Amino acid sequence: MAEMIRVPAEECRYLCSQAFERNGMLPENADRAVEQFILCDLLGIPTHGVLRLSHYIGRIQVGGINPKGEIKVDRKTSALAIVDGANTIGTVVASHAVDVGIEMARQSGIAFISVKNSNHFGANASFAWKACKAGMISMSGTNGGLTMPATGGKAQVVGNNPIGYGAPRKSGKHFILDFALSVQSRGKIRRAAELGEPIPEGWGLGPDGKDTTNAADVLQGFVLPVGGHKGYGMALAVDMLSGVLSGGAFSPHTKSQFFEANEPSGICHYFTFIDPEKMIGLDAFQDRLEEYCDWIKEQPAVDPNVPVRVPGERAADAYAENLEKGILVDANHHKRNQGLADGSVKGVIPKG
Amino acid sequence: MAEMIRVPAEECRYLCSQAFERNGMLPENADRAVEQFILCDLLGIPTHGVLRLSHYIGRIQVGGINPKGEIKVDRKTSALAIVDGANTIGTVVASHAVDVGIEMARQSGIAFISVKNSNHFGANASFAWKACKAGMISMSGTNGGLTMPATGGKAQVVGNNPIGYGAPRKSGKHFILDFALSVQSRGKIRRAAELGEPIPEGWGLGPDGKDTTNAADVLQGFVLPVGGHKGYGMALAVDMLSGVLSGGAFSPHTKSQFFEANEPSGICHYFTFIDPEKMIGLDAFQDRLEEYCDWIKEQPAVDPNVPVRVPGERAADAYAENLEKGILVDANHHKRNQGLADGSVKGVIPKG
Repeated sequence: MAEMIRVPAEECRYLCSQAFERNGMLPENADRAVEQFILCDLLGIPTHGVLRLSHYIGRIQVGGINPKGEIKVDRKTSALAIVDGANTIGTVVASHAVDVGIEMARQSGIAFISVKNSNHFGANASFAWKACKAGMISMSGTNGGLTMPATGGKAQVVGNNPIGYGAPRKSGKHFILDFALSVQSRGKIRRAAELGEPIPEGWGLGPDGKDTTNAADVLQGFVLPVGGHKGYGMALAVDMLSGVLSGGAFSPHTKSQFFEANEPSGICHYFTFIDPEKMIGLDAFQDRLEEYCDWIKEQPAVDPNVPVRVPGERAADAYAENLEKGILVDANHHKRNQGLADGSVKGVIPKG
Repeated sequence: MAEMIRVPAEECRYLCSQAFERNGMLPENADRAVEQFILCDLLGIPTHGVLRLSHYIGRIQVGGINPKGEIKVDRKTSALAIVDGANTIGTVVASHAVDVGIEMARQSGIAFISVKNSNHFGANASFAWKACKAGMISMSGTNGGLTMPATGGKAQVVGNNPIGYGAPRKSGKHFILDFALSVQSRGKIRRAAELGEPIPEGWGLGPDGKDTTNAADVLQGFVLPVGGHKGYGMALAVDMLSGVLSGGAFSPHTKSQFFEANEPSGICHYFTFIDPEKMIGLDAFQDRLEEYCDWIKEQPAVDPNVPVRVPGERAADAYAENLEKGILVDANHHKRNQGLADGSVKGVIPKG
């Protein structure tokens, strides 16, 4: 078992920024990139936090990501823009797009940003959180490496394209929703395969397109979309708003960050921001949202020891705890990140 | 078994408009309301088509819906508006909101409309279709009567809040997605209960909040959200964008169109429209979307006799067929609608 240790967020931030700067990023961009994945760790999403540093650095080192890519913003109207990520680190591209979008929404009440030529951007939750802190409602999504078949198909045609929603709450426990459009993550299926354990029906198909509970077969085959045709259609919609509408890469053209790590992955995202201040006023919106959340939490739970929750509350609790006690990191990963920061080890591309 | 007959869309349209006018609606509003639910029938969604006329008329007759409600548009910015439906028929309210939104998006590139004080609006697909015909990408959703519990809860806290996405295709077979956020509709569960048949695990919970395959128990209990916490969170997000953000009724305040039919239901919707012309140009967007759809359809199918599909193609095929041959209607319902049109029968509120 991995030994988990707590490391102050500030220390993780410093190490990661050092590693990016050492690999050619401008300090300003390195800090911005790191801010978003430290946020993932703080919010209790370690799968998208500092754990990823080695992969990202690895891709810079094999020439797949350009550490010096200059992000360009093409404003189409006062509420619409296309951001070209110039194939630099995805978290800095997305963070930049969020800043542009929030500024536009502050003026126009709403903004839609479609982003092309980016890379893996971590988790929607970290951008929703950033928007909430600015008093904005947000909706976002990203395309990604192909993992899912069409309904009735037996070829990978779309990624599990995660989506996110955020709304600012007065309590600071922001409403945050962030999930992939597959029933289950490949990570969980991989773990079952490693342990030789069966997986529940409905998680995936074998390479022949047939249902199976054999995890190894699913890894060779397909993960299934949540809700069947619902998740499949929604994953296409996400790619339509990001890959198709930005002029960037959509399913047939994206590259795998694992198997084609030395090529630009072409990943695309979208963000929508709405300023509640321009609708019924931020104050009124938040009072209503708080009433809603309070009402839900007053409802009876199936297990009285597990109270009903509202999306985002667990993340907000994790944020407070991790900020105070330090981020939970695998001791080996932390050591690896120290090596990436001082240049004594190289980044490693995971096997997918 | 019901005898299904084909009736020309024009004849259905005439009957429904007559029925609405006879019950106090202005001809212009009656036509607009009817246009949307005839569209549902044409698109192959008869559950949201002329079948509903009796229910809607019934609600007017018991004072739940105001046939003369005057819809008001409150423009907040050039891209944001709140529409007050004044408790008139939901399809006319939503149709009006769509027209406003499309016009705003034509100017600003994007528009977001939150709608309050409306009623059941039929199906998202009919509004997505309307937007596609105007060359617009659309996203929409509506809150509704409470049917689903929170994750881990045993009280109804949210509706199955259907969502829709649309994108115009050159072929006219528009990309249309429209689904409820429950695993299965109450309609299907009701049919199983009537037949005394068990339902699959995962469709619903009994009144005690425990899993059951007994359809009758689920009708007394809860239908489950698609993907568990994913569908639950998303249903809340839909209500946040419609009920909370419009200043209208959200979950604790909406009324059932079945059990509280004589009161305003307070249903709220939202619509987002994006003009692809303002992004990469409609032509380029459509060429890219067509390439995507063609590529998906070239992929191998699990059953070679059931080719892989793209969302909306079945609806577009149904549209062409039903327009040519007439809408498929239960003969008894058609007779009932004739009676509603000539005033010889009264509207009936279904039992939920």
